[in-house]
Amino acid sequence: MSLSIGVIGTGMIGREHIRRLTTVLSGARVTAVSDVDDELAGRVAAAIGARVLPGTKLITDPSVDAVLICSWGGTHAEYVLAAIAAGKPVFCEKPLATTSAAGLRILEAESAYGRRLVQVGYMRRYDVAYRALKRELDRGTIGAPLMMHCAHRNAHVPSFYTPDDMIADTAVHEIDMVRWMFGTEIEAVRVLRPRPSSHAGELPDPLLLILELANGVLADVEISVNAQYGYDIRGEILGESGTAALGELSPVAVRRTGRLTTPIPADWRERFLAAYDVELREWVDTVRAGGVVTGPDAWDGYAATTVSAAAVLALRTGKRVEVAMADRPRLYR
Amino acid sequence: MSLSIGVIGTGMIGREHIRRLTTVLSGARVTAVSDVDDELAGRVAAAIGARVLPGTKLITDPSVDAVLICSWGGTHAEYVLAAIAAGKPVFCEKPLATTSAAGLRILEAESAYGRRLVQVGYMRRYDVAYRALKRELDRGTIGAPLMMHCAHRNAHVPSFYTPDDMIADTAVHEIDMVRWMFGTEIEAVRVLRPRPSSHAGELPDPLLLILELANGVLADVEISVNAQYGYDIRGEILGESGTAALGELSPVAVRRTGRLTTPIPADWRERFLAAYDVELREWVDTVRAGGVVTGPDAWDGYAATTVSAAAVLALRTGKRVEVAMADRPRLYR
Amino acid sequence: MSLSIGVIGTGMIGREHIRRLTTVLSGARVTAVSDVDDELAGRVAAAIGARVLPGTKLITDPSVDAVLICSWGGTHAEYVLAAIAAGKPVFCEKPLATTSAAGLRILEAESAYGRRLVQVGYMRRYDVAYRALKRELDRGTIGAPLMMHCAHRNAHVPSFYTPDDMIADTAVHEIDMVRWMFGTEIEAVRVLRPRPSSHAGELPDPLLLILELANGVLADVEISVNAQYGYDIRGEILGESGTAALGELSPVAVRRTGRLTTPIPADWRERFLAAYDVELREWVDTVRAGGVVTGPDAWDGYAATTVSAAAVLALRTGKRVEVAMADRPRLYR
Amino acid sequence: MSLSIGVIGTGMIGREHIRRLTTVLSGARVTAVSDVDDELAGRVAAAIGARVLPGTKLITDPSVDAVLICSWGGTHAEYVLAAIAAGKPVFCEKPLATTSAAGLRILEAESAYGRRLVQVGYMRRYDVAYRALKRELDRGTIGAPLMMHCAHRNAHVPSFYTPDDMIADTAVHEIDMVRWMFGTEIEAVRVLRPRPSSHAGELPDPLLLILELANGVLADVEISVNAQYGYDIRGEILGESGTAALGELSPVAVRRTGRLTTPIPADWRERFLAAYDVELREWVDTVRAGGVVTGPDAWDGYAATTVSAAAVLALRTGKRVEVAMADRPRLYR
Ligand SMILES: [Mg+2]
Ligand SMILES: [Mg+2]
Ligand SMILES: [Mg+2]
Ligand SMILES: [Mg+2]
Repeated sequence: MSLSIGVIGTGMIGREHIRRLTTVLSGARVTAVSDVDDELAGRVAAAIGARVLPGTKLITDPSVDAVLICSWGGTHAEYVLAAIAAGKPVFCEKPLATTSAAGLRILEAESAYGRRLVQVGYMRRYDVAYRALKRELDRGTIGAPLMMHCAHRNAHVPSFYTPDDMIADTAVHEIDMVRWMFGTEIEAVRVLRPRPSSHAGELPDPLLLILELANGVLADVEISVNAQYGYDIRGEILGESGTAALGELSPVAVRRTGRLTTPIPADWRERFLAAYDVELREWVDTVRAGGVVTGPDAWDGYAATTVSAAAVLALRTGKRVEVAMADRPRLYR
Repeated sequence: MSLSIGVIGTGMIGREHIRRLTTVLSGARVTAVSDVDDELAGRVAAAIGARVLPGTKLITDPSVDAVLICSWGGTHAEYVLAAIAAGKPVFCEKPLATTSAAGLRILEAESAYGRRLVQVGYMRRYDVAYRALKRELDRGTIGAPLMMHCAHRNAHVPSFYTPDDMIADTAVHEIDMVRWMFGTEIEAVRVLRPRPSSHAGELPDPLLLILELANGVLADVEISVNAQYGYDIRGEILGESGTAALGELSPVAVRRTGRLTTPIPADWRERFLAAYDVELREWVDTVRAGGVVTGPDAWDGYAATTVSAAAVLALRTGKRVEVAMADRPRLYR
Repeated sequence: MSLSIGVIGTGMIGREHIRRLTTVLSGARVTAVSDVDDELAGRVAAAIGARVLPGTKLITDPSVDAVLICSWGGTHAEYVLAAIAAGKPVFCEKPLATTSAAGLRILEAESAYGRRLVQVGYMRRYDVAYRALKRELDRGTIGAPLMMHCAHRNAHVPSFYTPDDMIADTAVHEIDMVRWMFGTEIEAVRVLRPRPSSHAGELPDPLLLILELANGVLADVEISVNAQYGYDIRGEILGESGTAALGELSPVAVRRTGRLTTPIPADWRERFLAAYDVELREWVDTVRAGGVVTGPDAWDGYAATTVSAAAVLALRTGKRVEVAMADRPRLYR
Repeated sequence: MSLSIGVIGTGMIGREHIRRLTTVLSGARVTAVSDVDDELAGRVAAAIGARVLPGTKLITDPSVDAVLICSWGGTHAEYVLAAIAAGKPVFCEKPLATTSAAGLRILEAESAYGRRLVQVGYMRRYDVAYRALKRELDRGTIGAPLMMHCAHRNAHVPSFYTPDDMIADTAVHEIDMVRWMFGTEIEAVRVLRPRPSSHAGELPDPLLLILELANGVLADVEISVNAQYGYDIRGEILGESGTAALGELSPVAVRRTGRLTTPIPADWRERFLAAYDVELREWVDTVRAGGVVTGPDAWDGYAATTVSAAAVLALRTGKRVEVAMADRPRLYR
């Protein structure tokens, strides 16, 4: 039987996931949608033969087996809590919560429920290059890890993008990735500010984050959100006996007018489209099979939010900030 | 409505396509299967809730909207003709036919039917790297094409693999690709024989094919089927003002013991898995929408078979062999 | 006329430079040598038909047109001062001086002399890759610079190597390179300590240096001196509209057993041999032509020593240390 | 003692070698020069303090220890024979001779003299990339060789360049390289003609040479002399267990406007400058030491000329042409 999914939030990402569930992946269909913009929700629903329901009703409606949250970040925690209350699997786009406190409430609710229902949309864990990198690390190809050098570069960001967004919206992908890559927590954060780009308006762009991990690994992360030239995600791990880095994924190489050139992706969609497919494919398969989700869970979502908050503070104060994490509940060990 | 597909042939490729239609792609389901091995067909059918039918019955059965042929090559033409007779869209794994004469009968039948129903499984046209290469060529990035250098390397082939298979089973992918890339026909073929590899048993392995195209482009194609080190597909086009080549798709780069290393795919599955997904995705979408198939058609299948036959003759005689093609029927212009 | 050079210090680097002047480059000959080990000096001198002289005598001897200092670092400043007193061009291997104070005395002596006689052996400025990188930067290809990411990795270091050597002997090459690349001074330094490698004995290896430049550029520099896998020097500049990085200089690419591999240099000799040739070639040509040296001068030597001292302090204290530089004398503007 | 060299031919290549011997390499000086253009010879001689002598006088003059021939190709054989007659080491730019017959006379003269005096200027044997490639082959890294794929691309050629020049002036470098790489002779040649480039005027450009080696290796060589985009030399050897290819030697990598780009050399000078230095360095060192030259010898020069002649015939006739080589004289075994 096909999995019936209710989607909350029919903005860009919501519609993209609906397209994926409807026309790309087998095994699921979207039976209900919800959005603050009723008319938008209505149009989206009509195109796929789904119903429109208010978010909380959608979650409890019997026609919905599992919930996909793509609404504005500030609403995520409330919907996730409602899904846990309804005992339904829920895939929540990042962030899980906008504050540590809200994340903690989710951990408590899910712990009380006694089973992991929540997955958070950190899709890099499903990217072929990050997976290959982690595989080399886990195999011991390069020995025990010591450092990681990362860069996240967006060509452009919209005008409403804020300094905090550089952390909470962009760097948070690197924060989750580093935690997952090394299987350990981030204990302290520094954020350094080079001369800002003249293309960045008022933003302190670029930034250099320094992440201290519990296992002693040090990760430096460049965040550039007006890099102009393309969308470029880089990562290299220094191990005790070698290094492993994200590869170059260039479909074509052109030699012309004195230069060998390969293309760089324009945006995250081009770079990570396949990762989103795999992410949702694995989630649908797992939920249909009645299994416990294997992707980033509520603890991962809580941790990302908490480290982000520390990084925002580090950005504002210019100081090294220690990350204050709650004890990890038994459910997530 | 989901497209109901009947699959003829439940060997390795048939089962792979069934997996794809059932658990990967949306929009289709397999309602009937057929195989010379009844028991195998029965097991496959049971797992997905399909019926088992003899091939020709399957084609005409009302529960089957479209046919997918994955049986032994010698049976393809007969099934394709039956599908045309039934007026049903048919996806035929390569080769369309094992002889030019059989291919011609299909062209005539389809022409008589008056609408293109047939697509042939040359999946390289759906590969991200070949598509990027063709895009550069078509954009004029490198000017008018003059030559193409290709290599097709298999790590190993099974013991029953014959010299003719090097052409008709392996080089045929390059033959179709070159025709598609340049939008023109191959007029003559030479096959040169270097010293054979000691890993190749009795096979004349490697070979160098020289393909002369109607537009004057010359393509040289190395065929190695016991290359040992991996599955490696290469292509570079020389144009009047530059070159364009298939890129390196390496997810990870490791530095260790004095060397920078990137992985090479082990086999076609690893290299072209995504292309198979796209190929079938586009076919299902087109057929569901009631459109005319956009992939390699019966003419392409006929041409590949005819050029292959010339190349087999060139291999046996050591001579340059001109390709004797029928006139292109109006339906395929 | 050939330039007559006196070489002080006939250890490994001294003998390497003597070989270069004698058997590789035209235009110079070594007429006198000096070493604390008289017997070694005698053997080296005999092989090339040079005289042995005590260091200070060598400098003033009429048979010596120009002086090349390759002795132990602690002796450099004294010999450089003697060469200035003698009004002779002097090439001093790094460091120019082991303390800022000694460097300052050289700046004063040379300023009093009124003409630049001193060149310091920072040979990266002569490397084909660094020069190509700087050319792109200076052309504005990537816009105004914002950050630079660097890594300096030695496969191994000898057992007598100290934590301070990681800065003063190794990182100092990066310090000079960054100053030269951006044409600006380093104002503050941080040194961060990841978990140390188990291959590093008592050394705090690797390190991450954070260099703050006067123009606002931030440079992060990984220093690994037991990286095991090879000698690897990396650098990428982030500019406002793009990035430029040191290229891969791999003479051969091998595909074998599932991997594409290119070689990594074993040590600095393999990586920078040609840069040493160019460095000395340009120095000899300039001195023969009676010109003012164009390579790193006494101010550069002083600056490198002063920034190194700050970095050593930063390493020991874990704090951000501001670099206290003297005013730049008129001679070096 | 410095080696006194007489240079015959003060055109572009002659002056380039004079510059090299005078201002780059140690151990040699140019004491005499000769040219059909007396005035040019006079100016060149004056600049370096050499004498001007007619070619044959220069060869026998006691002030000349060794001879370097850079005159027009048609004069090479005569000068080489004179140098052998004088018992003097001679470095002859390619070709050794313009006909097989003239080459044969040199083999006989040198055999009669009883000692190898002649080296021919095929400088690719001194290139770092070709040497690294040959090292991998000789080490057995890729197993016994089966095929080699080569491309030689010039951006442009001058207007007086002829179809025969594509073979005798350009492809001859590939012919010598292949013989040296595999240590075996070329037995037959084919030359195939793709559609000519519109940038090539009347030239049949590009060409595809097929070289059959005595050991069964088959080499295909693209020759493009109006490739527009740069000077590009490529080579990949297919062995029984892997492949080895000339690497990418790119000093810098730029990311800008959606593309990663690395530079391509503009011409042979940029690509092979260092190889010319090494070539002459090794020749000067060997001659000074009184040794027998280790570079391409008269047999290699004869073979290159003889294979070229076969290839010119193959180009004109469109046929496979067998190479008719004399027996290898004892001196060259
Ligand atoms: Mg996400
Ligand atoms: Mg296929
Ligand atoms: Mg140095
Ligand atoms: Mg030459």
